[in-house]
Amino acid sequence: MHAYRSHTCTELTKANVGETVRLSGWVHRIRDHGGILFIDLRDHYGITQVLCDPDSPVFKDMEKVRAEWCIRIDGNVMARDESLVNEKLPTGEIEVFVRDLEVLGASDELPLMVFGDQEYPEETRLKYRYLDLRREKLQENMKLRSNVVKDLRERMWAKDFNEFQTPIITASSPEGARDFLVPSRLHPGKFYALPQAPQQFKQLIMVSGYDKYFQIAPCFRDEDPRADRSPTDFYQLDIEMSYVTQQDIFDTVEPVIGGMFEKFGKGRKVNKDWPQISYKDAALWYGSDKPDLRNPIKMQVVSEHFAGSGFAIFAKLLETEGTEIRAIPAPKGGSRKFCDRMNKFAQQEGLPGMGYIFWRDQGEGLEAAGPLAKNIGPERTEAIRQQLGLGLGDAAFFLGGKPKAFESVAGRARNVIGEELGLTDKDSFQFAWIVDFPIYEKDEETGKIDFEHNPFSMPQGGMEALNGDPLKVLGYQYDLACNGYELVSGAVRNHSPEIMYKAFEIAGYGKEEVNKRFGGMVNAFQYGAPPHGGCAMGIDRAVMLLADEANIREVIMFPMNQRAEDLMMGAPNEPMNEQLRELHLRAIPAED
Amino acid sequence: MHAYRSHTCTELTKANVGETVRLSGWVHRIRDHGGILFIDLRDHYGITQVLCDPDSPVFKDMEKVRAEWCIRIDGNVMARDESLVNEKLPTGEIEVFVRDLEVLGASDELPLMVFGDQEYPEETRLKYRYLDLRREKLQENMKLRSNVVKDLRERMWAKDFNEFQTPIITASSPEGARDFLVPSRLHPGKFYALPQAPQQFKQLIMVSGYDKYFQIAPCFRDEDPRADRSPTDFYQLDIEMSYVTQQDIFDTVEPVIGGMFEKFGKGRKVNKDWPQISYKDAALWYGSDKPDLRNPIKMQVVSEHFAGSGFAIFAKLLETEGTEIRAIPAPKGGSRKFCDRMNKFAQQEGLPGMGYIFWRDQGEGLEAAGPLAKNIGPERTEAIRQQLGLGLGDAAFFLGGKPKAFESVAGRARNVIGEELGLTDKDSFQFAWIVDFPIYEKDEETGKIDFEHNPFSMPQGGMEALNGDPLKVLGYQYDLACNGYELVSGAVRNHSPEIMYKAFEIAGYGKEEVNKRFGGMVNAFQYGAPPHGGCAMGIDRAVMLLADEANIREVIMFPMNQRAEDLMMGAPNEPMNEQLRELHLRAIPAED
Repeated sequence: MHAYRSHTCTELTKANVGETVRLSGWVHRIRDHGGILFIDLRDHYGITQVLCDPDSPVFKDMEKVRAEWCIRIDGNVMARDESLVNEKLPTGEIEVFVRDLEVLGASDELPLMVFGDQEYPEETRLKYRYLDLRREKLQENMKLRSNVVKDLRERMWAKDFNEFQTPIITASSPEGARDFLVPSRLHPGKFYALPQAPQQFKQLIMVSGYDKYFQIAPCFRDEDPRADRSPTDFYQLDIEMSYVTQQDIFDTVEPVIGGMFEKFGKGRKVNKDWPQISYKDAALWYGSDKPDLRNPIKMQVVSEHFAGSGFAIFAKLLETEGTEIRAIPAPKGGSRKFCDRMNKFAQQEGLPGMGYIFWRDQGEGLEAAGPLAKNIGPERTEAIRQQLGLGLGDAAFFLGGKPKAFESVAGRARNVIGEELGLTDKDSFQFAWIVDFPIYEKDEETGKIDFEHNPFSMPQGGMEALNGDPLKVLGYQYDLACNGYELVSGAVRNHSPEIMYKAFEIAGYGKEEVNKRFGGMVNAFQYGAPPHGGCAMGIDRAVMLLADEANIREVIMFPMNQRAEDLMMGAPNEPMNEQLRELHLRAIPAED
Repeated sequence: MHAYRSHTCTELTKANVGETVRLSGWVHRIRDHGGILFIDLRDHYGITQVLCDPDSPVFKDMEKVRAEWCIRIDGNVMARDESLVNEKLPTGEIEVFVRDLEVLGASDELPLMVFGDQEYPEETRLKYRYLDLRREKLQENMKLRSNVVKDLRERMWAKDFNEFQTPIITASSPEGARDFLVPSRLHPGKFYALPQAPQQFKQLIMVSGYDKYFQIAPCFRDEDPRADRSPTDFYQLDIEMSYVTQQDIFDTVEPVIGGMFEKFGKGRKVNKDWPQISYKDAALWYGSDKPDLRNPIKMQVVSEHFAGSGFAIFAKLLETEGTEIRAIPAPKGGSRKFCDRMNKFAQQEGLPGMGYIFWRDQGEGLEAAGPLAKNIGPERTEAIRQQLGLGLGDAAFFLGGKPKAFESVAGRARNVIGEELGLTDKDSFQFAWIVDFPIYEKDEETGKIDFEHNPFSMPQGGMEALNGDPLKVLGYQYDLACNGYELVSGAVRNHSPEIMYKAFEIAGYGKEEVNKRFGGMVNAFQYGAPPHGGCAMGIDRAVMLLADEANIREVIMFPMNQRAEDLMMGAPNEPMNEQLRELHLRAIPAED
């Protein structure tokens, strides 16, 4: 017989009754029923109930065994009494009477129980991660992650993509976030950097003549702590293709991501024919460039109904250029209590408040209630109702000013309204491409023009567009939004050195600066660069959505804590003097 | 029609004649045949011949096009003249007459020609890697690598292994080589390290209750330059399993690696039923713990024939304890010229020389020639011949002393003999497990006992063995040798905290030191650790063997040069002062 097991802990059924078997696993739970020990023996695959009484030659030893000891047992498979069959367990028809026992690994007292639902502080969970990982939820999350990554790879291979590994020790590349640096021992005073993403490398792969690249790529950013991101590294499904338009990329990626979500979504619906929404429309309709489309609410401009109306605040506001009044329709939100709560929400978010109207039946048919309705009068109120398609029992909220100033609050209000009124379909994944991002934005204070997103995107209209008003230039640049998250980001790249230099020049970067920062890639574009584009999907984020987890640490095997420390391995720690000497470095004490 | 192509450059056949098509790619070669331009248009998939003459509306533009420009053409597919059909090309039956042309990416003068076989200095090749990668050899090597990695993943999945990603930013772990350090910004004076291998993490994954883990894992070692290794990072197929014996691991890995080599070996034979050779036998028989078994030569101990013989040097030598005489049989090596050359080889390698005997026919039957034969006389000579199974036209070489002193030279001599005599079957992959490595070795000078290999292996015989003579303790530790390379290394791990502390104590490391160095893992072993083991295969090495390349840079997409510099991206480089300040570091000028 094998040294450790003849079966795993999920394999034995009635068919095995009478056999002598060998099992190995962890003691999940141990119960003493009047001198008979019942043990749930657990391995990666499942649980088998084993039992032992004084008739067993190893009863005395078995009495010493405790939870989470790793043991090997030999025993006889017996059918359970009809009344004791556990239908939830694949092995629920049988139990194994223990005849031999070997303790493979004993355990000290447990700082964290694997069995049961007790909650522990995050410090404990991270320090004893290997125990936390034995618990069902994390065990399942990690299997899900492994399966998701496998599935994505299979889908990309099926589309004839090559998977290539790009360098992890490379040059610093100022792409927005902060680099992790790696001092060079052989070149004193010089440093490598860990890549924030394989952006330049994947573009170089296209210049090298490969047609379709992907990688499940580690990315490194020295970020300040935040709950929903890892402070050090994360993984993305990184994709790049040559000779493609934006639509080609969408057509490639949609079935990969949609198919994966359908497969692992545990029955949650996935929308088909993902809409393409312009950045501008997304801001107007949803107050966000990563809208949650499970929520059907779509905001609208209603400025005309307030211009010159009796509601002086809005009427006055609209006299300033660039202002707008927007409405958030709230079907079934027609109660003063609800409306007041939402008004308060806006105040908590830093706005003066949200005006509202709601429609009720006071015995004489539809009546528009709320202070706004009174101020603007019945005709304008009715016109608003008709525009928004609302009726009895519904409400609408109003925000005014320069859109940039209230858009994001409007977006959050939309989320809360959708949630509170039960409009948001929790049981689905709703994807939409957000397209036509502006290439540039203007700093309101300094007036300086800078890249809005990522400097490597091809401007729509090419060089000609760049010679016009830069703030009107849109890029072949897109995000994929899912349930309120940005799941994918990508672009058709700017592969023309001339257009790239011009694009950087507008943002205030001279040719020399561009060559210094992105020299590897820009040089390559001088030697017959093909048109190309691609995108990247956050793996951690996708698994979080699938596993319905809000904390990224629930979907990473060995995560850092929020202070970027690995409590289990003790990282970071102080180097040996010898190490610093070899690296030609001296640590400067921090000034506290 | 699609913006860039209706077909790739490998798709058009006679069936397409008469169609209007659109192709994109690089100008591989351009020839002017009396006013007609013939262009080999190349993409990732292949080559299509296109042509253009003054009848084409874009002839003038086409005349300006140069090698490696990236272009898009529209044209008519025409059948080639019977006499001009190129059977080597999938598109060799047709050519495309160009009617429209768009330059997608022009090229400056090329520092490196893609077409043709011209050789370039490595500096040029690495600086313009994206051009070098367009050349057929590298293009194929990278596709091979991508396919090998894909194949390995599929084989591991088919065996129900989970692929998990382990941390890349982690704690320094003194495992033999030098760590790359990463300064922490949030924790001044502290550093992370890049993992030399996921060794501790994969063991922690087993303690966490996962049964079968693999990963194509990046590993980081700050190594001093050497031709056949990357000075920064490399990839390994990393494997770990719970509840297994050494044989289980072999049974798992053999079909994965063997199958992969069969699939990508381009017809080269792969041996079945890989032999398991003890470390001790490998040293004796092959003079190496990574023997090249394509070479059939097996060395033997022949001390008895020289003890007390007339060959004073060996006879005297054998009086010292621990000495041996070993023979390298050399079938078909029976000429004085060859024997002298081998003797010289040994001298170049730092030995006094290799004695030899060879057997020739001087008309009176078999005659043993060479000085050794005369000294020891015909009886002993004949006994040697019989032991080695040699005959007419064969030779044998002899080395004596303490085996450690001549073993590796003997191994190299065996290689040269096998090569020169054509005994080595170049057309095959010969795998063998090398097993039973000693856990410890003794430093001849200091007498200090230290780990021979890796401190995490389970000693054969467990605690009991450690209580005896440490130099006699063998480990459940193994390598897989292939064609003279160490392709895989692995072990059944020491999962018992007691045995681990004891093992380290013997090598002079106290409990505190062990806790400090390997605390993450050793702590985990206190909480019910399962028996486990695994191995790791070098991906770069495997692809080198398959591609028949001697330089690791030929199988890595964007490699460093031997001085650990990335000439294309300009890494390492000098950080900005601001970056060093944030990291609380100061660079110390090197003393030259």
